[in-house]
Amino acid sequence: MSWGVDNLPYGVFSCPGERPRVGVRYGDRVLDLAPALHDEVFAAPSLNPFMARGRTAWHDTRTLIRNKLTGDLAVTEPHLIPLEHVRLHMPFEVADYVDFYCSLEHASNIGRIFRPGSEPLQPNWRHLPVGYHGRAGTVVVSGTPVKRPSGQLGPGEFGPSRKLDIEAELGFVVGVPTEMGSPAGAFEDHVFGVTLVNDWSARDIQAWEYVPLGPFLGKSFATSVSPWVTPLEALPRLPGRPQDPEPGGYLRRQGDWGLDVHLEIVLNGEVVSRPPYSAMYWTPDQMLAHMTVNGASLRTGDLFASGTVSGPEPDQRGSLIELTWNGTEPIKLPGGETRTFLQEGDTVTIRATAGDLTLGEVSGTVG
Amino acid sequence: MSWGVDNLPYGVFSCPGERPRVGVRYGDRVLDLAPALHDEVFAAPSLNPFMARGRTAWHDTRTLIRNKLTGDLAVTEPHLIPLEHVRLHMPFEVADYVDFYCSLEHASNIGRIFRPGSEPLQPNWRHLPVGYHGRAGTVVVSGTPVKRPSGQLGPGEFGPSRKLDIEAELGFVVGVPTEMGSPAGAFEDHVFGVTLVNDWSARDIQAWEYVPLGPFLGKSFATSVSPWVTPLEALPRLPGRPQDPEPGGYLRRQGDWGLDVHLEIVLNGEVVSRPPYSAMYWTPDQMLAHMTVNGASLRTGDLFASGTVSGPEPDQRGSLIELTWNGTEPIKLPGGETRTFLQEGDTVTIRATAGDLTLGEVSGTVG
Repeated sequence: MSWGVDNLPYGVFSCPGERPRVGVRYGDRVLDLAPALHDEVFAAPSLNPFMARGRTAWHDTRTLIRNKLTGDLAVTEPHLIPLEHVRLHMPFEVADYVDFYCSLEHASNIGRIFRPGSEPLQPNWRHLPVGYHGRAGTVVVSGTPVKRPSGQLGPGEFGPSRKLDIEAELGFVVGVPTEMGSPAGAFEDHVFGVTLVNDWSARDIQAWEYVPLGPFLGKSFATSVSPWVTPLEALPRLPGRPQDPEPGGYLRRQGDWGLDVHLEIVLNGEVVSRPPYSAMYWTPDQMLAHMTVNGASLRTGDLFASGTVSGPEPDQRGSLIELTWNGTEPIKLPGGETRTFLQEGDTVTIRATAGDLTLGEVSGTVG
Repeated sequence: MSWGVDNLPYGVFSCPGERPRVGVRYGDRVLDLAPALHDEVFAAPSLNPFMARGRTAWHDTRTLIRNKLTGDLAVTEPHLIPLEHVRLHMPFEVADYVDFYCSLEHASNIGRIFRPGSEPLQPNWRHLPVGYHGRAGTVVVSGTPVKRPSGQLGPGEFGPSRKLDIEAELGFVVGVPTEMGSPAGAFEDHVFGVTLVNDWSARDIQAWEYVPLGPFLGKSFATSVSPWVTPLEALPRLPGRPQDPEPGGYLRRQGDWGLDVHLEIVLNGEVVSRPPYSAMYWTPDQMLAHMTVNGASLRTGDLFASGTVSGPEPDQRGSLIELTWNGTEPIKLPGGETRTFLQEGDTVTIRATAGDLTLGEVSGTVG
């Protein structure tokens, strides 16, 4: 079954009139963990206290939940609540939010679009996973409406963005913090799980503002995440894509952290792209190592995202700016409609699978 | 007297064996607010709950404290604790941290240093206050030691930064949040007070990493703030510096938010620069308006900093990269020592006054 015992993602839910608390999705129901496991850490309105417990607790809890669900279901049944009775909330409290730029194809496409005639990749791109800090306070859960931002679109030009876009990404959620001054240890000792991310982007605002300090208002108005955080332990892994030059030192890969995740971007019900996460150039262990090599500390709830996932094929691109080549090649939708960038009322859903698992979806409607 | 009733900055302190709580500095003592005002909001280990109450509460509380301190001191005396008996903590819990780039002279100097032969200012600089998100989790209180970061210094080159620098800034602390989708209202309705900021910077790491997404590891290892937050109400104000072109629309100035603050940078006991805040080009009301014009929400505890404060004179520059022109013109210190960038054991203190007020200091030692 979908959402079976090999999946078991964590989220935060509430029933009408009750407080939000932690649950695990199983089939079309949510397991209410605090009473099911007799553990008050799950009565919190976010995953953070549980995530802070660390890898052994994550593993043991997962085993315990599997045993409950595969054992005498009569005992567990009272704690399984049908999905249609619950509301899903932001699953974790975001501490810092970092967004990387780890797809070779995405970075190359953006380079070609923004700097035609120049070398598409910047000189540093193959030497380090380029990243920057985003706004943690506007990370919202799937389903939150996204209002089109206004801003400066050029010198003396102000108004609603005309190039509202999405970026399909994976996000990595940190459970175990570090002290300032000490780089992170093993990836799997710190990272609790994976979420789907839509990094909404206003390309016209971004293009005017981003030199020299990077994206700011073009991104900070909203970033959506999926309600379910899939434990790292559940994900099928692959060797990372070969890198040239092969990174040494702190960027040497810690294991096979290529992830066999297949994304789909759905615009108003139509699949418009199928980005393969396996095509990503920098792997998440390298992102974590880079983010902390300077001694920057981690906190429970830190979210770092991969950057747009774009594969080598045109129908594997993870943003509209790439899919429509900056609006010059509109996408055709059923019923004769076309799109360059997003219009009022458009709904974008990013969903993903990994082998037999589903990572669920992150969805948002403009307006 | 210094730190008198016209000053009254807020901080978080603890006595040995006791929990951190909110106090106000008065002379060389700290007024223990929770018992003095019979208000449990001050028993919190951060200013956030009090800051969330809003402008009327801020004003009324300030009046109440002044009355206590100018009235029958016998009543208040038991709640005044000598500074030497207390430890000072991070005064507020940082939500998001944004760093701006609001000094015309600083931006011009950096442009000349990093891009010699080109126009020093980017085309957008006079049209908007350029800013970016920094790492909230590594904002620390004055006195926290700063470890020299390691990182990539160029292609294939890794090691401790050889260009460890400081940036003297003012920081603005948000008390009253906004909803996503709605720009902020009046500056003084949201911003609680002002702190001194040292935005430690590793210039070699920054120079290699920052294109195209902005500074990341060159800044994220540490940002220090002063322990005392001066209420906005206490600060002497000036008209903002004239702007060309004069900004309209959402960037039209909301009042006289030029601040008559004089900074000093002290390196190992020697004053090496005196940056005047009145020289800043973009005023803090413009920063706030810009940061939220796209609908990005504010949270209690958001910190936005001005960017390096540099005046027009060479001895008014707010960073070592400017003061030593990227290391080509070393600073002379007493005893025949010189400095380009920071060495192990160096102590940097940024202090400031505003009229008769002191804003205290933010200090840190490398190593």
